[in-house]
Amino acid sequence: MHVAIIGAAGMLGRKLTQRIVAEGAIQGRAVDRLTLLDVIAPEAPKFAGHVDLRAADLSTPGEAEALVAARPDMIFHLAAIVSAEAELDFDKGYRINLDGTRLLFDAVRLASQQDGYRPRVVFASSIAVFGAPLPYPIPDDFHTTPLTSYGTQKAIGELLLSDYSRRGFFDGIGIRLPTVCIRPGKPNKAASGFFSNILREPLVGQEAVLPVPDTVRHWHVSPRSAVGFLLHAATIDVDAVGPRRNLSMPGLSATVGEQIEALRRVAGDKAVALIRREPDAMITRMCDGWAPGFEATRALALGFTAEASFDEIIRVHIEDELGGTL
Amino acid sequence: MHVAIIGAAGMLGRKLTQRIVAEGAIQGRAVDRLTLLDVIAPEAPKFAGHVDLRAADLSTPGEAEALVAARPDMIFHLAAIVSAEAELDFDKGYRINLDGTRLLFDAVRLASQQDGYRPRVVFASSIAVFGAPLPYPIPDDFHTTPLTSYGTQKAIGELLLSDYSRRGFFDGIGIRLPTVCIRPGKPNKAASGFFSNILREPLVGQEAVLPVPDTVRHWHVSPRSAVGFLLHAATIDVDAVGPRRNLSMPGLSATVGEQIEALRRVAGDKAVALIRREPDAMITRMCDGWAPGFEATRALALGFTAEASFDEIIRVHIEDELGGTL
Repeated sequence: MHVAIIGAAGMLGRKLTQRIVAEGAIQGRAVDRLTLLDVIAPEAPKFAGHVDLRAADLSTPGEAEALVAARPDMIFHLAAIVSAEAELDFDKGYRINLDGTRLLFDAVRLASQQDGYRPRVVFASSIAVFGAPLPYPIPDDFHTTPLTSYGTQKAIGELLLSDYSRRGFFDGIGIRLPTVCIRPGKPNKAASGFFSNILREPLVGQEAVLPVPDTVRHWHVSPRSAVGFLLHAATIDVDAVGPRRNLSMPGLSATVGEQIEALRRVAGDKAVALIRREPDAMITRMCDGWAPGFEATRALALGFTAEASFDEIIRVHIEDELGGTL
Repeated sequence: MHVAIIGAAGMLGRKLTQRIVAEGAIQGRAVDRLTLLDVIAPEAPKFAGHVDLRAADLSTPGEAEALVAARPDMIFHLAAIVSAEAELDFDKGYRINLDGTRLLFDAVRLASQQDGYRPRVVFASSIAVFGAPLPYPIPDDFHTTPLTSYGTQKAIGELLLSDYSRRGFFDGIGIRLPTVCIRPGKPNKAASGFFSNILREPLVGQEAVLPVPDTVRHWHVSPRSAVGFLLHAATIDVDAVGPRRNLSMPGLSATVGEQIEALRRVAGDKAVALIRREPDAMITRMCDGWAPGFEATRALALGFTAEASFDEIIRVHIEDELGGTL
């Protein structure tokens, strides 16, 4: 099986690649060829099969056709300009997140009309398709009224995915990812970065800043489970999914206070003492617009699974990023 | 005030033009200039002010800019490839309904960035943004999962409208029109045409075919009220609407049986006797996917109004299309 990953150099793209390479398969279906695409060339994985590394911007005319020319059996579309950048640079956000996605889908459509090509397409959508005011928990049939250009572009991608799937051009599944926590790497400037920072940094003896009250509730998943969603979406029976191809993924709804208590249980008071409270009114206001949690009834029934506690999310981080011990 | 109507040669476009010309104003705000655009040149109305007639396809590069160059204060965007044609011709549907809409919105955006231009944009959306299975009544916060390319294109237009409005490029309002009934003119091939045919034809002594059972329930509005929605959307306080700019319009939920009983009350048994039942399994199946009715809570609170009975819908038709008497 030939698997293409668009956005392969990103955090999820790299973890997905590692997992596929480690298992040599996706849910038991052998993978012998990987195409890894990103705007900067992804690193070559140690893989026994054939690997194509492509440095390309999907929104450049011809790039999607070139990718599709080799007829990958599965395409993971993870590439996106993130929320803050899409908000700052209107043209770039629409070009990459909307036009890039549509060019990919159209390249598959044209190939499908040529020779009956019909790959699985897994699209990484986001809970940013939802905009405040939001109920808690958010039901599966709640409307998508994004309050960012990024969320708008993802919601449009979802609609295209469903329509192109309904038309039979490909078998698409869109998965609305919760906020990934604990995000590995350095603290970044994303407004939501503190959810990861207040755990990741104290776990290695570093200070972290908490800009919001302990009562803020949000929706989380570990990087490992997020990769699990992608792999499950890649092999799930699309007939069981039906025409509504975009699914709110399961996750863990937790307050910041619950995150901190989990940190205390796993790493003790001295870790918790490294969290420095620096209230930020703007970030606190932004939090009000973020999804507190989902029912995810359909996704759970379809076999998608996530962590049940923040203790578990922290343990996954220790296993996957810190070699298994503190 | 300069008003532009895109799709001015269509049924709603012509009625909207007539109403504006008759009143010389929109909700009391004087109109001194009209730009009427359609793929075929709209007829010149008898209007005291200045009229520009444009035969143009909005999806042709440059046409949207040309329209926006004169900085109309209000833009009604009614142009669309209808559902059946958008389903048959994938490229044409996406080109006109999605690209045309986006080119218009982008032309306004660029003008807005040049000189602070910020018109009102009223976008005719459709209940086709919803796809079965549907609850009855459909609440305002129900998700949009269209089952046609037309519905997909309208749902994408809605998302763009909200995002461009949030960004301040224009003040957009999207209105999801119920099925317009009684549609004037000749019986057409639209699968939903019978809802109008079974009333319009018997009212003038002609036979009409009913392909579905009397129990089929659907969501209707008169052409007069549909034009009323457009005019109300053109002048409504957008701050009262908030960031969720797309509204399911009010309408009348009625079964075919209720339509027929209203016809009997208004035009007697001999009119009802002209309805010939010719069951069509395919059309009956399609009806299962159509919206039975909406709560329309927000639109009602914002002052949009529709008919309360089918007797009233029939009387509007007699007044507006048949000179006031049978």
